[in-house]
Amino acid sequence: MKRNISVKHLSQTPIEKQKVELVERKCIGHPDSLADGVAEAVSRALCKEYMAECDGGVLHHNTDQGEVVAGESAPAFGGGKIVKPIYFLLTGRATRNFGNHVFATDAIAVEAARDYLSTTIPTFDMNRDVIVDCRMGSGSTDLCDVFNTKKGHTAVPRANDTSFGVGHAPFSQVEQIILGLDEYIANEFRPKNPMLGYDIKLMGLREINTITITVAAAMVDRYCSDITDYVEMKAKMEESFTQVARKYTDRKVKIEINTADIIRKKSTSVFLTVNGTSAEMGDDGSVGRGNRCNGLITPNRPMSMEATSGKNPINHIGKIYNLLSTEIAREACQKVDGIEEMYVRLLSQIGHPIDYPLVASVQCITKRGYDFKEYQTEVEEIVNHRLENISDITRLVIDGKLKTF
Amino acid sequence: MKRNISVKHLSQTPIEKQKVELVERKCIGHPDSLADGVAEAVSRALCKEYMAECDGGVLHHNTDQGEVVAGESAPAFGGGKIVKPIYFLLTGRATRNFGNHVFATDAIAVEAARDYLSTTIPTFDMNRDVIVDCRMGSGSTDLCDVFNTKKGHTAVPRANDTSFGVGHAPFSQVEQIILGLDEYIANEFRPKNPMLGYDIKLMGLREINTITITVAAAMVDRYCSDITDYVEMKAKMEESFTQVARKYTDRKVKIEINTADIIRKKSTSVFLTVNGTSAEMGDDGSVGRGNRCNGLITPNRPMSMEATSGKNPINHIGKIYNLLSTEIAREACQKVDGIEEMYVRLLSQIGHPIDYPLVASVQCITKRGYDFKEYQTEVEEIVNHRLENISDITRLVIDGKLKTF
Amino acid sequence: MKRNISVKHLSQTPIEKQKVELVERKCIGHPDSLADGVAEAVSRALCKEYMAECDGGVLHHNTDQGEVVAGESAPAFGGGKIVKPIYFLLTGRATRNFGNHVFATDAIAVEAARDYLSTTIPTFDMNRDVIVDCRMGSGSTDLCDVFNTKKGHTAVPRANDTSFGVGHAPFSQVEQIILGLDEYIANEFRPKNPMLGYDIKLMGLREINTITITVAAAMVDRYCSDITDYVEMKAKMEESFTQVARKYTDRKVKIEINTADIIRKKSTSVFLTVNGTSAEMGDDGSVGRGNRCNGLITPNRPMSMEATSGKNPINHIGKIYNLLSTEIAREACQKVDGIEEMYVRLLSQIGHPIDYPLVASVQCITKRGYDFKEYQTEVEEIVNHRLENISDITRLVIDGKLKTF
Amino acid sequence: MKRNISVKHLSQTPIEKQKVELVERKCIGHPDSLADGVAEAVSRALCKEYMAECDGGVLHHNTDQGEVVAGESAPAFGGGKIVKPIYFLLTGRATRNFGNHVFATDAIAVEAARDYLSTTIPTFDMNRDVIVDCRMGSGSTDLCDVFNTKKGHTAVPRANDTSFGVGHAPFSQVEQIILGLDEYIANEFRPKNPMLGYDIKLMGLREINTITITVAAAMVDRYCSDITDYVEMKAKMEESFTQVARKYTDRKVKIEINTADIIRKKSTSVFLTVNGTSAEMGDDGSVGRGNRCNGLITPNRPMSMEATSGKNPINHIGKIYNLLSTEIAREACQKVDGIEEMYVRLLSQIGHPIDYPLVASVQCITKRGYDFKEYQTEVEEIVNHRLENISDITRLVIDGKLKTF
Repeated sequence: MKRNISVKHLSQTPIEKQKVELVERKCIGHPDSLADGVAEAVSRALCKEYMAECDGGVLHHNTDQGEVVAGESAPAFGGGKIVKPIYFLLTGRATRNFGNHVFATDAIAVEAARDYLSTTIPTFDMNRDVIVDCRMGSGSTDLCDVFNTKKGHTAVPRANDTSFGVGHAPFSQVEQIILGLDEYIANEFRPKNPMLGYDIKLMGLREINTITITVAAAMVDRYCSDITDYVEMKAKMEESFTQVARKYTDRKVKIEINTADIIRKKSTSVFLTVNGTSAEMGDDGSVGRGNRCNGLITPNRPMSMEATSGKNPINHIGKIYNLLSTEIAREACQKVDGIEEMYVRLLSQIGHPIDYPLVASVQCITKRGYDFKEYQTEVEEIVNHRLENISDITRLVIDGKLKTF
Repeated sequence: MKRNISVKHLSQTPIEKQKVELVERKCIGHPDSLADGVAEAVSRALCKEYMAECDGGVLHHNTDQGEVVAGESAPAFGGGKIVKPIYFLLTGRATRNFGNHVFATDAIAVEAARDYLSTTIPTFDMNRDVIVDCRMGSGSTDLCDVFNTKKGHTAVPRANDTSFGVGHAPFSQVEQIILGLDEYIANEFRPKNPMLGYDIKLMGLREINTITITVAAAMVDRYCSDITDYVEMKAKMEESFTQVARKYTDRKVKIEINTADIIRKKSTSVFLTVNGTSAEMGDDGSVGRGNRCNGLITPNRPMSMEATSGKNPINHIGKIYNLLSTEIAREACQKVDGIEEMYVRLLSQIGHPIDYPLVASVQCITKRGYDFKEYQTEVEEIVNHRLENISDITRLVIDGKLKTF
Repeated sequence: MKRNISVKHLSQTPIEKQKVELVERKCIGHPDSLADGVAEAVSRALCKEYMAECDGGVLHHNTDQGEVVAGESAPAFGGGKIVKPIYFLLTGRATRNFGNHVFATDAIAVEAARDYLSTTIPTFDMNRDVIVDCRMGSGSTDLCDVFNTKKGHTAVPRANDTSFGVGHAPFSQVEQIILGLDEYIANEFRPKNPMLGYDIKLMGLREINTITITVAAAMVDRYCSDITDYVEMKAKMEESFTQVARKYTDRKVKIEINTADIIRKKSTSVFLTVNGTSAEMGDDGSVGRGNRCNGLITPNRPMSMEATSGKNPINHIGKIYNLLSTEIAREACQKVDGIEEMYVRLLSQIGHPIDYPLVASVQCITKRGYDFKEYQTEVEEIVNHRLENISDITRLVIDGKLKTF
Repeated sequence: MKRNISVKHLSQTPIEKQKVELVERKCIGHPDSLADGVAEAVSRALCKEYMAECDGGVLHHNTDQGEVVAGESAPAFGGGKIVKPIYFLLTGRATRNFGNHVFATDAIAVEAARDYLSTTIPTFDMNRDVIVDCRMGSGSTDLCDVFNTKKGHTAVPRANDTSFGVGHAPFSQVEQIILGLDEYIANEFRPKNPMLGYDIKLMGLREINTITITVAAAMVDRYCSDITDYVEMKAKMEESFTQVARKYTDRKVKIEINTADIIRKKSTSVFLTVNGTSAEMGDDGSVGRGNRCNGLITPNRPMSMEATSGKNPINHIGKIYNLLSTEIAREACQKVDGIEEMYVRLLSQIGHPIDYPLVASVQCITKRGYDFKEYQTEVEEIVNHRLENISDITRLVIDGKLKTF
């Protein structure tokens, strides 16, 4: 059966030519990202348990819910304390009984969440700073039914919903800067400067040719002995981050860090935290409220409202099609010459095999000097090939090789 | 001080000319909508209490979080039962102490949530089917500070964040159909046909000139005596909904209702519920995961990821700018001739007065036969006037006159 | 088979001759009593559902757990407000699946608890002042097994545990005063004086021939306009309560009400509440921590530590034997002449029929001028007859005709 | 001021002469004991924090509440798994703000509870098997007031309530056996036989001269490879426990272990657990429902209903007077010749200094051949001296040197 793939030319001002562009990323320790990360960790742990017990099969589950209820803290230069732990509520549902098996879904979820948190935010005292609670359900019978067809690995799963996924490529300069900064902070800057915490919000605003990166960064108090330390760290961050940003653009770049700080003799109000996340002191978080699966929030681009994290990676369109459309756009822009910008939308139809979307719609802005017709077929083939191998997405997700936020 | 208002021409394929358009709405009883509705009801109740006690002032709060954890039910033709209540967790934060006042924030929140639920889903047995729990915090001192400036009513609040809002007008045919159906169901169809529940997902897909509206509608079992009743109701819905849709379009319209139903002699699986919402049997919900503030999810349009419901209506950009940009677009398209499509983006700067956004960016697709220059100034004036009167938004929200989802 | 009934003479100073006697009662609105009342209401509701669905059979459940977590309130003369609702956590376990039946255990529990609370504390605004949460389990298979034997109604249930129950009669003067006051308050005084709340702790202390009744009584603020009102009510209570007490004794009686009150011009601290229970403002409660099943706490008498409320009334020794031994002592003292004091202890053996206790041990202090031998046999017969008809206890409990606290 | 100490002769059948005696102990891993242990650990941790921050002072708190909600497990010979973690809810209240200090009461409570659990039940996987949640309040202002008097360490605290404590000595043979077995198991038997779990209920029944010790002991599955192992362990326990019991009595002793076990070819039902506590599989627990502060439940002795664990050790009569009266009885019976049995009751009066009880009432059964008058004064002096040094109790409790359950 032929897939319904539509690759069209798009006439639209490319992102870099638009006057204003806004890009945001909530880094790993932001309350919404913590919620996403926990949700995905729980799903991955369940997948592994199901696979181990069910001969490679994954049973129904969706843990794309859950809430991070902020705690209270009393940060202080040199080291303060958590007053009230952050409360993580795990919800969603997962198959508990299958044949003779009883799956320890609640215990697995709690363990996966705690493991994820202790690894991700190493400053957490897991015995004191964090409560992980669980009110997970068991899934309705109907939804379980869908998965029974998966036995034998020959059948492609059927879509759980009429929904869609969307992705784009390539990344704009601002998008690259934001992602580049995130990586730089995680892999280079923070290891050397533990004062910089995990909850960082990067907001990139481009007005024509000026890019302003506003950074809201929680500092870890135990590594910050006084206000001078704090101010120096901000200066250091500004300098380093500017250098990183310049790798991706020739435009004018401004880095602004913790602009809400008030540093006066009498009253000082800075973004100081005990563990490096605002979840400890007033900011709640939820799954699916932060980054899209490409790691960004991009109001200038089409986005899906669907949470990607925590959804089952077998037949949940909100997860698979968002990841897949992003992968398709990336691959096509990398392999095919002439594409200035590409938007991929995959539309499912509930109950139909996920490798046959209702429509796979691709829109391309063509680079100056290229002809759309020349690459159209090549793109179609990439889309078709990717859909044929849609189960690769599932595998990569379970192995933790595809980020979901 | 002059406002930074930028009204530009946009050359882009208008929505009606695009090959594929997708529009979704989660109606009032969808788990995500329940979460939104409760969050907004809590915020409104807090506003009223603050205003009553603080001489018209509203203190800091944000209740744009919270979780709906699905219950379990055993629906049956003629009337089944709720096995495990739906669990609503109220979170967020609100000022509890101000001067000598102690605000009953938790009690107010619980009451507002329960009132909202009993009004919205009249099938709920509030004594048995629903648990409303509360883990609301008190807000950090910093955020409270922002609100002190409000005393005297002369100062405009300052933005709580560097963020943005986005809105568009006019609505496309599919958007109109979805919103029209929602209104028709709530005001005309359901009052006469109580079998139709509150949790309805309307998904509109236009492929060139064919519009398919997929309806996933929870039926209320006490009003449905058997499978024949159920099937007849679906037929009735199909007929009525088709007529409603035709008011908004000449394109071909297909209505598809509960397509996942299996109705066989041996095994029947239909969307039957006790109270008319899937939250009773497996579907969780969260604030901010459903409709945008115009009531729709529109992947073909720019959207904001920010939850609108539950945020304080004083200085929370994620709420005010989303609502305002939608209002601006509506007003402009209504008053000004020649606009085919309009996108409004408002960008805040943390700590700056909200009536002076960093930039108010408007993009217009001009109708054939009109000239952008002719209406540009008029649009600018509308934007300027709306920003000048930004506090109208706050008042309308508190009075419940602006929907947030 | 002959029952092992041992009726013995006891040589011990009778209670009225002891120098010091202490008796306590936590009235209906005390946090511990609220916990007991809710637990028992839930058990009764489950019994009724099981009986309705299982042809008169009652399935395994024990709801003799649960916690009342105090709220916060801001009482004020004339009417204050609840700031944070009281949180009731329902726990325990109940059979959810039996044959093809699914029992709505969680929903039944929540409903029973809310109904009980609204009836018992009519001042509660059930929409605002109270949160009822539920984390009930499903019971282990082993325990369910025990109940399968009940089918057919011919077999007597087998004891769930090696445990015991204890009861005594007749009530001493102080015990009568405490119970008499409780009844008088509930049926006569409070209906006329709604200012007197529901959470009243009655502590009776007899030192030789002086009886002091210390009353800690929560007042309801909406019915108390000022401190004068409050003081007058205390005077009125003192007078009325003294009269009631005098019905039961010729000893000297002192009534002391809210002795911790501080009433000064500068600082006043009185026991004022919004709804008439200290659970609203700081006092938690638990099942089984308050009154024994005769309604009293009597340190001068043998007592069982077992909670009576919430336990299943079929085979839970901690419930049935405590109730039965109290009933036996009452009946014997009423019907048989010559008994000054009587203590009944029933000892079970796990797995054996409950109408054949390991030993039914009765100790009697004989009235002056009577001979133990004369009534010994009569008492034995009463014990034997009561054991023969042990299932009466179950029925009375389910019908709510036996108080458990 | 002279203390009101009353030492009287008691004419009563001594315990060893009574026909039937019942003694029970819930060992360290029983759900009720876990609740007690956690409550006391939290109180001790708070005391230490208060003392460190307040120059030796202890602020108001009572954590004598809390609930252990059972989990679910799937035990299996050789090692099963926890399916649903045990849920511990910490409640009660503790002073959070004092002067400029903010006390991390919630975080301290969670940490203390988790530390206690991991130390006490080393089989727990703390990351997976246990959820510790916290809903602790802040204490009402009134109660805080009481503690302000403690500053300066000169004033003796005032009683929080009109209440009483009760204690007795010496221990009967059955009481000694139960306590001796508990110690033997913890210090000798279990270290060598890890199969024996932590949740053990010891029930001692003496009928005239026959003592039956019924042991309900949770076995740890990972140390029990099959049913043969299990049966052998029961035999080993029976043998060892019999030897221990014989140290304390010449009466006939029977040890009965896990009498509810069913071991048949077809169906086997034994007391096997994953971690060695029934809290993992269906048994809830509460503070104050288990052992009295002497470690026993003794229906033949006067007992207090008050929970000892978790109460503040400064002025809470329910804690201090129970501990003190037990200590007094022990000391007097040890030091003074001629006492067959001794019962101590201490009665407080709310608001009065705790070293001056309303009455300290001591009842003594005199050994044959001794004269009550000869030791009466000596006992009075011991009581007086102990009351004078009542603060020793507080110190011993905080240092963990007095057991509370």
